[in-house]
Amino acid sequence: MDASAKNPAVVLVSGGMDSAVVAAIAQERGFSVHALSVRYGQRHTSELDAADRVARALGAVEHKVVAVDLRNIGGSALTADIAVPEDGDGHVIGEGIPVTYVPARNTIMLSLALGWAEVIGSSDLFCGVNAVDYSGYPDCRPEFIEAFERLANVATKAGVEGTGFRVHAPLLHMSKAEIVREGLRLGVDFAQTVSCYQADAEGRACGHCDACRLRAEGFAAAGITDPTRYR
Amino acid sequence: MDASAKNPAVVLVSGGMDSAVVAAIAQERGFSVHALSVRYGQRHTSELDAADRVARALGAVEHKVVAVDLRNIGGSALTADIAVPEDGDGHVIGEGIPVTYVPARNTIMLSLALGWAEVIGSSDLFCGVNAVDYSGYPDCRPEFIEAFERLANVATKAGVEGTGFRVHAPLLHMSKAEIVREGLRLGVDFAQTVSCYQADAEGRACGHCDACRLRAEGFAAAGITDPTRYR
Repeated sequence: MDASAKNPAVVLVSGGMDSAVVAAIAQERGFSVHALSVRYGQRHTSELDAADRVARALGAVEHKVVAVDLRNIGGSALTADIAVPEDGDGHVIGEGIPVTYVPARNTIMLSLALGWAEVIGSSDLFCGVNAVDYSGYPDCRPEFIEAFERLANVATKAGVEGTGFRVHAPLLHMSKAEIVREGLRLGVDFAQTVSCYQADAEGRACGHCDACRLRAEGFAAAGITDPTRYR
Repeated sequence: MDASAKNPAVVLVSGGMDSAVVAAIAQERGFSVHALSVRYGQRHTSELDAADRVARALGAVEHKVVAVDLRNIGGSALTADIAVPEDGDGHVIGEGIPVTYVPARNTIMLSLALGWAEVIGSSDLFCGVNAVDYSGYPDCRPEFIEAFERLANVATKAGVEGTGFRVHAPLLHMSKAEIVREGLRLGVDFAQTVSCYQADAEGRACGHCDACRLRAEGFAAAGITDPTRYR
């Protein structure tokens, strides 16, 4: 079956490991993958380079990068001049919502995915939110995904006139170790991905932020050698 | 009471007449107005100039313009090279969803408003959606507003930890004539606003698109002289 005969899915691809696994899952489920990344003013653009590598490695139909100026809104360590928390500064992952939370980020990104899905005639959105080994973000919980799916079905022409939208979050209840194993099963090359909140221009990770720590713990728990490049 | 002592509200201000009335309503209800406009790739930017005039005339605390590249997504007469429907081409306002529908636009705009509201500590979003004399857009209906409010309360730090969000759509059940009268009661200077989908650089209206026709019908029905400048 060629890609054009498959149902299209819009997959949010950040360049990190989780969304790379999600894209591979979407493909395994028989969708043609239309990868969407959002240039929202993140600290570095090496994750967008990684997103492009992920989309190419997968054979995505296309990879679109949409710009939205969230730096203009600010309010996060990822979009304003606020330090990214690191190990050793006393904070505990999962206790409270950290300053790396970008206000309404997943709502904004899924909204953009929804708009593009309407344009290409897709009824399926995929995203990599995860409620287990996560950083305590409210928009990474099952109730968020359910509420967004309900919204999508009343907000859009496709939802009202068409077959409706499904929001797939296949990692929602998986641990980081399970995500690592699932990615390996699907042939995801994790060396291509960048998870770090403050990677350098070459995509090398700091090893100290929450994203690095969760990633490293996932590989360790899975008993897999971590291919992350550190600076 | 000075503005800083009032509760802040984020008001989506497009430059058109409806959102100008909404901003005045928010102010009358005792909120300090933080006006938000979205530069999404619309055909002309004279509506953003109008938004700035509206915000200044009202004495808004601030007016922020956030850019999001919806032209990159396309799919609408307002964001792609698709002709804007005009009177005389046989289409009927309210029959079906027209090509001026921008996929997921109100979802995207409210998402941005939600993000900014979190940053400034606001729990109240205002928007000018209207389900009576409207163009048949799915994201202008009461069920859309309800679904977005539900989403906002699970998606955000403020929704989870704080007092929750309210999405106000005070024009939802008003006719265009009622909106005109409400605006006059509140002192809105409609001459400052631009509703036309294809206004020129000076903000002069075409007089033929659905937005122009609905606006003109509203003034006529209200028995008020229409201050719209036509080209």
